[in-house]
Amino acid sequence: MKVGNKSYRTIWVEPKNQNIVHVIDQRFLPHQFIIKEIHGHETMALAIKEMWVRGAGLIGAAGAYGIYLASLFINYADEIPIKLNQAAQLLKSTRPTAVNLSWAIDKMLEKLRGIKNKEELKAKAFELATQIADQDAEMCRNIGLHGLKIIEELHEKNPQKTINILTHCNAGWLAFVDFGTALSPIYTAHIKGIPIHVWVDETRPRNQGASLTAWELKEHGIPHSIIADNTGGHLMQHDLVDMVIVGSDRTTRTGDVANKIGTYLKALAAYDNQIPFYAALPSSTIDWNLRDGIKEIPIEERNAEEVKYISGLIENGESETVLLCPKDSPAVNYGFDVTPARLVTGIITERGICKANENGILELYPERK
Amino acid sequence: MKVGNKSYRTIWVEPKNQNIVHVIDQRFLPHQFIIKEIHGHETMALAIKEMWVRGAGLIGAAGAYGIYLASLFINYADEIPIKLNQAAQLLKSTRPTAVNLSWAIDKMLEKLRGIKNKEELKAKAFELATQIADQDAEMCRNIGLHGLKIIEELHEKNPQKTINILTHCNAGWLAFVDFGTALSPIYTAHIKGIPIHVWVDETRPRNQGASLTAWELKEHGIPHSIIADNTGGHLMQHDLVDMVIVGSDRTTRTGDVANKIGTYLKALAAYDNQIPFYAALPSSTIDWNLRDGIKEIPIEERNAEEVKYISGLIENGESETVLLCPKDSPAVNYGFDVTPARLVTGIITERGICKANENGILELYPERK
Repeated sequence: MKVGNKSYRTIWVEPKNQNIVHVIDQRFLPHQFIIKEIHGHETMALAIKEMWVRGAGLIGAAGAYGIYLASLFINYADEIPIKLNQAAQLLKSTRPTAVNLSWAIDKMLEKLRGIKNKEELKAKAFELATQIADQDAEMCRNIGLHGLKIIEELHEKNPQKTINILTHCNAGWLAFVDFGTALSPIYTAHIKGIPIHVWVDETRPRNQGASLTAWELKEHGIPHSIIADNTGGHLMQHDLVDMVIVGSDRTTRTGDVANKIGTYLKALAAYDNQIPFYAALPSSTIDWNLRDGIKEIPIEERNAEEVKYISGLIENGESETVLLCPKDSPAVNYGFDVTPARLVTGIITERGICKANENGILELYPERK
Repeated sequence: MKVGNKSYRTIWVEPKNQNIVHVIDQRFLPHQFIIKEIHGHETMALAIKEMWVRGAGLIGAAGAYGIYLASLFINYADEIPIKLNQAAQLLKSTRPTAVNLSWAIDKMLEKLRGIKNKEELKAKAFELATQIADQDAEMCRNIGLHGLKIIEELHEKNPQKTINILTHCNAGWLAFVDFGTALSPIYTAHIKGIPIHVWVDETRPRNQGASLTAWELKEHGIPHSIIADNTGGHLMQHDLVDMVIVGSDRTTRTGDVANKIGTYLKALAAYDNQIPFYAALPSSTIDWNLRDGIKEIPIEERNAEEVKYISGLIENGESETVLLCPKDSPAVNYGFDVTPARLVTGIITERGICKANENGILELYPERK
């Protein structure tokens, strides 16, 4: 999507020098837009580990490009298997629980297996990594096209009215290669000229909404307002929200949605005010073995310091971290919550829109019956 | 309540020097505990205006003591009416929408009217101001005694278990002369030896929970954990909350409760998980003319900078303000929301506990029928 009128992906190779992979260093957002050049797989491992890049789709692509970068430094054909395996091990170790990362790396290794010529290896690795990145972008673009239909329907009912959409956390293009999931229908509708305004939940404690989502929307030119997470219910009571779209980190086959902590509260408010609530997600987040999200999805408990301290810019433009509460007061920090399917109006995937229940999901994915 | 093992009120006069009024300067909480000595009504006006003192009950008492301080500097009996009126005008102008402030000042003026002797005036003003402060503390103490019954019932069901209570914002003793409203039953139960743990919503954007409520509880020795406002729903889904108690800024005669923004979301989650949700409030917050809180209670829209910037302590112990989002992104900041009576299990007032509906409330206040 756009940054200052120029189109970007979160990870890319420029035609004039294919030996360098570029990424947006997301640690400095929203205050600084910094592009990093990555020359080898060790730097890519660092970029994943230190969260220059983050988000399921993006770190899969980063892993794939990491394997490609490793292939550039192989001097002897004999070394190919051992060097690729070493690189794979290092890259996977950076975020051991990220399913997409090991999936992409394993896919690269599988398709490169048996190649004995180093030039052929480089060419094939480049092709495969590009394919993984393109597929991620294409999947998100399709989520956008399907989700667009819902926004178009709202727009047709009242073409003069700006559609107000509330979102929580960041499920935008920064988490993927392009487009994003929850934000993809919003970008698509905006590009089609439908007037949209986005309510951006700041998403405490890590504030991905106020920092990443607001930055994405601002750079792409989409009207938005940042709100405290407490605000959505009041807005919905007063007809200031037409729909809610969120992403998902893990979805049960019955349609329960695990997403950033606080999503469940917005789903309750949407339900109470008869406002449609959608989860936009790639089918790779569906865990086909789970039926009861609240009982079965383990919720990560994160460092309490994330609640007690927050970082931002001070007046001189430098970054600073401030303590928000009594130093000795304990804090508790759960990362996600589960929204039961009964509160979810529908699920938007790369294949289409379905009801948030087993039958609905299996209609889109009959091979999982 | 206690600060470092010593009992305090938020405003008091020490017997050895009745010409000075003491207040806790709340601007420095939770990081510093500073007591200010107030020698005259002009300083008291400043203390109210600049929010050294805040909270409905406390600023009422501060206004009353302000009139008392003014009475100390009257040299001629002839001056009494004009000087008192001047002081009243100045004090009232500091927070023009604070109902309790003008109520307390008007009450002082009314009872002092006609006194012609300056010694008699001082004595009477002192007696009246003390009475107003004592009545505020007593009203809160009664809310605590009534609310205690609910906690005792939970405790009796399972005496081994710690009772987990969630609260939002600060409705503690810092907002009143002592005890508070939502926190009063918690203090009372703790003093009776019932094991309690409080989930403290940080209460963005002004973080009154993370700063004031956490500080109060810590100083009084009550176990608590600060959580992001997003967290309560998840805790309730997992049986980690036994009841919710909040305060109220304005209540309809039908039991709708206007309180700090985000209260409605917690009420929805409590209802969805069959957890009792109580509002603790002095009957002075009941607006007997209102029947539909969502339609009739105007919600203050505050400065967007409160969402975009936050203050806290940096490592060297100094206070600093940081920007949390893109500088150019707009933010919207509503101060309160309305929880409809259907989500409120009960209302705790200084007279007792009632259902959150007109009949229930009128049973406690038959004179309003």
